[in-house]
Amino acid sequence: MSGVVVQNIPRADAQVIAGLAKAGVATVHEAQGRKGLMGAKMRPIQDGVAIAGSAVTISAPPGDNWMLHVAIEQLQPGDILVLAPTSPCDNGYFGDLLATSAMARGCAGLVIDAGVRDLRDLRAMGFPVWSTSVSAQGTVKETLGSVNIPIVCAGAAVQPGDVVVADDDGVCIVRCTEAAGVLAAAEKRLAAEEVKRQRLAAGELGLDIYAMREVLAKKGLRYE
Amino acid sequence: MSGVVVQNIPRADAQVIAGLAKAGVATVHEAQGRKGLMGAKMRPIQDGVAIAGSAVTISAPPGDNWMLHVAIEQLQPGDILVLAPTSPCDNGYFGDLLATSAMARGCAGLVIDAGVRDLRDLRAMGFPVWSTSVSAQGTVKETLGSVNIPIVCAGAAVQPGDVVVADDDGVCIVRCTEAAGVLAAAEKRLAAEEVKRQRLAAGELGLDIYAMREVLAKKGLRYE
Amino acid sequence: MSGVVVQNIPRADAQVIAGLAKAGVATVHEAQGRKGLMGAKMRPIQDGVAIAGSAVTISAPPGDNWMLHVAIEQLQPGDILVLAPTSPCDNGYFGDLLATSAMARGCAGLVIDAGVRDLRDLRAMGFPVWSTSVSAQGTVKETLGSVNIPIVCAGAAVQPGDVVVADDDGVCIVRCTEAAGVLAAAEKRLAAEEVKRQRLAAGELGLDIYAMREVLAKKGLRYE
Amino acid sequence: MSGVVVQNIPRADAQVIAGLAKAGVATVHEAQGRKGLMGAKMRPIQDGVAIAGSAVTISAPPGDNWMLHVAIEQLQPGDILVLAPTSPCDNGYFGDLLATSAMARGCAGLVIDAGVRDLRDLRAMGFPVWSTSVSAQGTVKETLGSVNIPIVCAGAAVQPGDVVVADDDGVCIVRCTEAAGVLAAAEKRLAAEEVKRQRLAAGELGLDIYAMREVLAKKGLRYE
Amino acid sequence: MSGVVVQNIPRADAQVIAGLAKAGVATVHEAQGRKGLMGAKMRPIQDGVAIAGSAVTISAPPGDNWMLHVAIEQLQPGDILVLAPTSPCDNGYFGDLLATSAMARGCAGLVIDAGVRDLRDLRAMGFPVWSTSVSAQGTVKETLGSVNIPIVCAGAAVQPGDVVVADDDGVCIVRCTEAAGVLAAAEKRLAAEEVKRQRLAAGELGLDIYAMREVLAKKGLRYE
Amino acid sequence: MSGVVVQNIPRADAQVIAGLAKAGVATVHEAQGRKGLMGAKMRPIQDGVAIAGSAVTISAPPGDNWMLHVAIEQLQPGDILVLAPTSPCDNGYFGDLLATSAMARGCAGLVIDAGVRDLRDLRAMGFPVWSTSVSAQGTVKETLGSVNIPIVCAGAAVQPGDVVVADDDGVCIVRCTEAAGVLAAAEKRLAAEEVKRQRLAAGELGLDIYAMREVLAKKGLRYE
Repeated sequence: MSGVVVQNIPRADAQVIAGLAKAGVATVHEAQGRKGLMGAKMRPIQDGVAIAGSAVTISAPPGDNWMLHVAIEQLQPGDILVLAPTSPCDNGYFGDLLATSAMARGCAGLVIDAGVRDLRDLRAMGFPVWSTSVSAQGTVKETLGSVNIPIVCAGAAVQPGDVVVADDDGVCIVRCTEAAGVLAAAEKRLAAEEVKRQRLAAGELGLDIYAMREVLAKKGLRYE
Repeated sequence: MSGVVVQNIPRADAQVIAGLAKAGVATVHEAQGRKGLMGAKMRPIQDGVAIAGSAVTISAPPGDNWMLHVAIEQLQPGDILVLAPTSPCDNGYFGDLLATSAMARGCAGLVIDAGVRDLRDLRAMGFPVWSTSVSAQGTVKETLGSVNIPIVCAGAAVQPGDVVVADDDGVCIVRCTEAAGVLAAAEKRLAAEEVKRQRLAAGELGLDIYAMREVLAKKGLRYE
Repeated sequence: MSGVVVQNIPRADAQVIAGLAKAGVATVHEAQGRKGLMGAKMRPIQDGVAIAGSAVTISAPPGDNWMLHVAIEQLQPGDILVLAPTSPCDNGYFGDLLATSAMARGCAGLVIDAGVRDLRDLRAMGFPVWSTSVSAQGTVKETLGSVNIPIVCAGAAVQPGDVVVADDDGVCIVRCTEAAGVLAAAEKRLAAEEVKRQRLAAGELGLDIYAMREVLAKKGLRYE
Repeated sequence: MSGVVVQNIPRADAQVIAGLAKAGVATVHEAQGRKGLMGAKMRPIQDGVAIAGSAVTISAPPGDNWMLHVAIEQLQPGDILVLAPTSPCDNGYFGDLLATSAMARGCAGLVIDAGVRDLRDLRAMGFPVWSTSVSAQGTVKETLGSVNIPIVCAGAAVQPGDVVVADDDGVCIVRCTEAAGVLAAAEKRLAAEEVKRQRLAAGELGLDIYAMREVLAKKGLRYE
Repeated sequence: MSGVVVQNIPRADAQVIAGLAKAGVATVHEAQGRKGLMGAKMRPIQDGVAIAGSAVTISAPPGDNWMLHVAIEQLQPGDILVLAPTSPCDNGYFGDLLATSAMARGCAGLVIDAGVRDLRDLRAMGFPVWSTSVSAQGTVKETLGSVNIPIVCAGAAVQPGDVVVADDDGVCIVRCTEAAGVLAAAEKRLAAEEVKRQRLAAGELGLDIYAMREVLAKKGLRYE
Repeated sequence: MSGVVVQNIPRADAQVIAGLAKAGVATVHEAQGRKGLMGAKMRPIQDGVAIAGSAVTISAPPGDNWMLHVAIEQLQPGDILVLAPTSPCDNGYFGDLLATSAMARGCAGLVIDAGVRDLRDLRAMGFPVWSTSVSAQGTVKETLGSVNIPIVCAGAAVQPGDVVVADDDGVCIVRCTEAAGVLAAAEKRLAAEEVKRQRLAAGELGLDIYAMREVLAKKGLRYE
């Protein structure tokens, strides 16, 4: 059932995507009811970078990166490659040559539940990557996978065209059709947080701002 | 048996605490007979920061950060929050809002056997954190835990008021009552190490400085 | 069968070693037929450093760093210490004093399937380390191990005198006798990659450069 | 977005489900194109049991098993409970009392990406469980989750009503709508395997049965 | 600070200890407010065995089992050996000879945050073990540890003389002074559970027995 | 450099191999100076089985079991298949059909640093397996590996023809040329252990049998 390349995928509005990148993973995750977060093993190879883009998904056999070449042709500017191996694998599927090719197509980054290599080059090129390992172990090009089919990556279900939001906190997936609503909710959260931040910075306690004292007492909290 | 907040805890002398921070985790750990070290999974989110402070301890349910709000009220300037979940959990218990609140109370840092989020903000604010994971997955405020009770955090037993020493090497706990003695022993070690460092830098071998050759030969070491 | 120090080991030509460092781990690994790579758990404590050197190997008991002192005497300028514990151990076998001693003997770096400590000092000294953990937990000097015997380190078999190549991607071992041939193959790869990089950067696809389309179709890949 | 219980879910035909149980996880996984397999961390608490049933899915907060009580009411005879925590958790969500209740409703087993407890009782009762851990650590009943919504469990996407196939090899998910087709393919595989088994048992080699020698030679395999 | 053997330790009443063994780990853990549980990595090497006994604690260096010989002399009939290495270690600290010696002194079992070996012999002898690994890798007898000092074992703080309760669900520690009270609470729980078990077995739902429907509705649970 | 099948390998004497199986992993490992032990992640799928045999080694790509078919032709009665993937992989490389084929050639068992499947069948057939995981995830037959070349399996270096000793404690490798000497040493150990066992069973302490009291006192052990 592998060996499929879906060429037409939906994409969310570019401004919505940009807004989600700015809101960041933690806020977006909260704003959509705490769903879509990849596991904590998914870490960035760089610090301080926050991006969002439409997912071009790749299902690849363990130790085989052939489908990355196929997927790059499907990229539109701003898209993010999301690769899940069909079984756990820490091989370096992606290095500086593939990054050069992906960047030439306008790719905004890579999210991979596997390894990457040529770390120094990737960082020097400014190509953002979130991966679960780093390994010089290369791959082969022998077995078909699929491009733009639904996958599960680091514990999150990803549909092609979903919005991928990634920063220092990890990676979160937003359904394409829900992106605008999630952005609105995220912006509301950010505004509310700004007010709280100022009160907390002034020394007010969360116990008072959130009116927790009575609830805590009712639950039985006792001070000694 | 949870649901307790102990309000009066002992604290070590401020100058002793400052001295332990300067000595660093590896030296302090040696100086107190190699006890109190947290496991190697406890890693800093920043490089090059070394702190020490009195532990305000938190026992929290998995996925519930309610007690952090309670604990922040108990902070005195220079204290360090130390949180252990009652079962393993990698959720992001702590982010920029809680850090804002903790800093407003003079908190020196956080040590947590669980996850944190808003990594970029925490780094930008200069709030030091040692954690076992990073995750945007938030928590709830539904179940009581306790503040300032004895806990086990990343394999180390921590009493409220113990001195927490943390740097790039990890986190070490010093009993409040033993802090002055440990500092004295640590400073003696540092002085002795300085002498050895100069001899080693000059090319002398540890084999000779520590008079190991004869002992090694007696144990049966043979050169081929 | 431990308790042996082999004093005369072969070493590859210095220019060959320098060439392998420049080629880097990923290229060298490919050039020698994808063998000799250590596992992905072996990570650098610093970014952007690439070195190569002759392996001085150490087999050490868990939690015992005595043989490091013995090994340092066997170092020649440019050598790299490679330590494997006889059973898994994350203790901090190596810190700033041993680094001072090793640097005084011209040691180029440390590769260790265990822990190191004094991280800030090691970074400040510019002493490169690849390790599987960081821990302030020190070691004892009680039990013999061996120096310059064959070991398995992070899944790779290492002979004394083998060339150790290490960078941000990990660590790869090249047999001493094969080093010159591997370098030649590596340099050929680098030249070939440069041509491909320019074509990919210009927007050509790997699908076309590597003539994959027909093979993919024959395997059954279908576009939808 | 949690706090939902979907009451009407599709279910596959009972005979198809029984056929899939008999075919077993490895064969079913192959027969449906190698998709739907949970990760290898999902292990049975008993040996030699093979079952299949319709999935009643549960999304539960970490350390909170409230939704299991809600889900049990939704069970029909032969159904299998499938629980995924919203973040990693090894707590014992399920023990002998819940098993008693589930069995009273005809539940065929439990698949849980978390822990169970009362292991001896569960085994004595003959209630089959596949879990990722065993822990006496109990849970609370404070926070809502959902029942019969799509979840990701141990890396596999599960829809309510999907067929869960579980045996000593692990757990595989078959889409409800594809179950009949997968069973047909599985039975064809089993028949074909039986023929091969007899030839292999008689000493014929796979190299000959599958006509591999020529292909291997063409790929470059050489005998020395 | 190691190198200490404490000879006089408190022990709980033998009948209380026997009662705790019968109640089992999950019930005892609940009965004492969910504290004292070792982590889920602590697994039995046998099925269906449930024991309790007074802890004779051992703090041992990594890869060094010398203190086990010292500890065996401190055993009284019914005691349980509890060993924590001072840093993580999976070596086989304990095999059939030590088990023979321990059994000769009336030892009821071993709980060890490390490895054991001679598995077949240990099972044949009926000597119960809970460990975090199995390994034929032996240990040395070179470095002092301590016996009957407070330790942290698999995440639980253990005092010498504490009651160790162990069964298929794991290991739980009860403070010596609290043992009688915990047993009383455990027996009350068991009686209450028996009533619930019968109602659940008869088909009543937890939703009704525990009167959850209204609370769930108030929290916002909705049926679709 | 893969794609090689070495057809003539040395094998140890059959009686020596049988003796090593009887001595068991722990004793053999000690008798040869504690080398050759595979890591603790290598676990049997059955209890109570102890075997030894000559290693037919396999180096296989991740997720590709083609070379198993090639290796089976190289088997002689009593041989053991030892497979190491070229990068970490938990796929089910081996199931009941390959076991049928291997048994028809007289194969004594499988040691694999990867996964197996058809667990129930393998156990029913009495085919012994030591593996690092269990997974129904199958493999492909696309890429060459090698047979009977030196490999590293679960941390142990294995040469074709080495004696593989495996039981409940794990797997240990004995060099073909050293097998007879190791057996002699193992039998001497077993005899000596028998004497100690009787003394320990009679209640004598290891402290006295091994004359440890004076050494412990000299090291500074103090009784309180």
